[in-house]
Amino acid sequence: MKSFTKKQCHKVDYCELKQFCKEVFMALKLSKADALISAEVLVEADLRGIPSHGVGRLWRYVNGLRTGQMLPEPHTEIVRETAGSIVVDANGGMGAPVSSKTMQMIIDKAETNGSAFGCVFNSNHFGIAGYYAMLALEHNMVGLAMTNTAALGVPSFGRQVMFGTNPLAFCAPANTEKAFVLDMSTTVVSRGKIEVYDREHKILPENWAVDKTGHSATDPGKILKDMFYRHGGGILPLGGEGTQHGGHKGYGLAVMVDILCAVLCGAPSGADICDTETSSARVSHFFGAIKIDCFREPAEFRADMDKMLRRLRATRPAEGEERVYYAGLKEFECEKTVIEQGVPLSLATFDSLKKIAEEFKLSFPS
Amino acid sequence: MKSFTKKQCHKVDYCELKQFCKEVFMALKLSKADALISAEVLVEADLRGIPSHGVGRLWRYVNGLRTGQMLPEPHTEIVRETAGSIVVDANGGMGAPVSSKTMQMIIDKAETNGSAFGCVFNSNHFGIAGYYAMLALEHNMVGLAMTNTAALGVPSFGRQVMFGTNPLAFCAPANTEKAFVLDMSTTVVSRGKIEVYDREHKILPENWAVDKTGHSATDPGKILKDMFYRHGGGILPLGGEGTQHGGHKGYGLAVMVDILCAVLCGAPSGADICDTETSSARVSHFFGAIKIDCFREPAEFRADMDKMLRRLRATRPAEGEERVYYAGLKEFECEKTVIEQGVPLSLATFDSLKKIAEEFKLSFPS
Repeated sequence: MKSFTKKQCHKVDYCELKQFCKEVFMALKLSKADALISAEVLVEADLRGIPSHGVGRLWRYVNGLRTGQMLPEPHTEIVRETAGSIVVDANGGMGAPVSSKTMQMIIDKAETNGSAFGCVFNSNHFGIAGYYAMLALEHNMVGLAMTNTAALGVPSFGRQVMFGTNPLAFCAPANTEKAFVLDMSTTVVSRGKIEVYDREHKILPENWAVDKTGHSATDPGKILKDMFYRHGGGILPLGGEGTQHGGHKGYGLAVMVDILCAVLCGAPSGADICDTETSSARVSHFFGAIKIDCFREPAEFRADMDKMLRRLRATRPAEGEERVYYAGLKEFECEKTVIEQGVPLSLATFDSLKKIAEEFKLSFPS
Repeated sequence: MKSFTKKQCHKVDYCELKQFCKEVFMALKLSKADALISAEVLVEADLRGIPSHGVGRLWRYVNGLRTGQMLPEPHTEIVRETAGSIVVDANGGMGAPVSSKTMQMIIDKAETNGSAFGCVFNSNHFGIAGYYAMLALEHNMVGLAMTNTAALGVPSFGRQVMFGTNPLAFCAPANTEKAFVLDMSTTVVSRGKIEVYDREHKILPENWAVDKTGHSATDPGKILKDMFYRHGGGILPLGGEGTQHGGHKGYGLAVMVDILCAVLCGAPSGADICDTETSSARVSHFFGAIKIDCFREPAEFRADMDKMLRRLRATRPAEGEERVYYAGLKEFECEKTVIEQGVPLSLATFDSLKKIAEEFKLSFPS
């Protein structure tokens, strides 16, 4: 599923695709600025080779805005603020605009305070966490972004979903090397991957998910259904079942993300967050930035990052493997190709976008 | 190896054990205060059921102090400081005293700045990361502690050690519940676990370590030797081999820890950090504290933490399992038992302590 053959996909110019998404959001009453940022975060996911978070999801936002689950012009409110912190009530708006603005404010605060952090609650799906963390890079800061999600993850030795796939992103700038950008769910896999196995009628690898008994199971359709209706079972934390391969560590990381996103600002957490058939979960996010020059001259930091990252990608590969990457490198390389050659869209995504174009009487990039 | 039978272990009163360690450190020219903190961190590991980081390692510190790898009275220096940050050159001192003092300074800074972070470089092994993170708890802060270690970890698709077991600790206070304390290496397991399998002539589970080819291997003795002499092979990142179970995530977390501990303050990182037969690696650490009341009333935060943690430990266990824990709970329960019943010491540890007692002409707790 990672690469598309000619027959299976269309390629669309990324600027035109972003413009199209922006027009759809504007037709749904988002301001021009909010529409742009919402479009940008979506297309950025496709650019970086993460189509599960890209324009294939546009219809979900269209639905969300139509049903009122997501508000196009929410009354966003700062509910607590200090020189180094901010708590924002998104009041049901789209995730991307409020997240982007909050991260910008955090970066401004970190500029004078050295470091700054913020929570956003009453929000919606914000796309890829890495997008917001990466806003810190050009300011000579390390960036941090996290979000909780609908509960899909099962604790070590448990059998019920108690936390989301709770991604965390961390990034640090380099100089000539591409930045280090870690953007990972804290579960073994995201729900999207299990859906792909289901569509392709494949059984899951062991140690991705558990069934109602709490033990590793491999039928993707059954797991998705039982997980959605909370019949028991769900996705395993990073490290897998039990503790032998460190499942308790992934479980701990997922709860850490939930504490920072939700408990720190009084938002719902854990099993209280759920999607329904007609709406997606209200989620909360956590962002942070730390200024490098509090610790060291940024130019020296960047030069040492170059050395570290170059050594990592130059390390000898395992037998049968071609390359060793570092976090974010593959995505930057993908971005370059996609900008040159166009965004590859699966037939399903292409059709869903065409349908949206027709509904809104917008022209879709050919 | 987790529990000891009567014949295999001695139990020693924890206060007396701490006093003994303190006297050993004082005999090795540490100040009374530094000796106390060094003893406390060691015994705390045994209290929390982490004997791999406990008094069984006292002989290593004795050796380190005798050979000059660790200095008893180092010229510790603050090399950069702002209202919210600090960089400390430990100048080869013991890890525990400088780490404890730095974390205290960070907590003081966070009290006025909202958040604060610090690096310590030119340091030595600091024991359990959780100890320092937990210093933040009574100040209504979340705490953070990390360290890099001698390189033992192999990147996804690689075959050479390029980073340490790089633990990270994160903690958040609750009210009536025990605090949430995540303290985890970012590799599947630590070297200590592989040593245990070697001593017991057992083969390793798949997906813990790789050999010179870069693929999963199960002979602990061979892996330890090849890893030490850098012949190829080493421990896998959390998530295991390749990317199918998220090994690239553990790899990314390990590098993140190295960036914050080392690149941020200009200290050696990655494969440059190594133990030799006569000395252990100079390592660096990263600490942080974020004040809860920048985001929310701490009492409300603690009450919500109670709710979250109570639900996690009350969730239904998998078939055949008795309990679900949250990060830190098992360790707090262990601490209670050990304080009441004494610190269980393996025969090997007991003998090594007796030998140290004889050398220094100190009485060892019976």
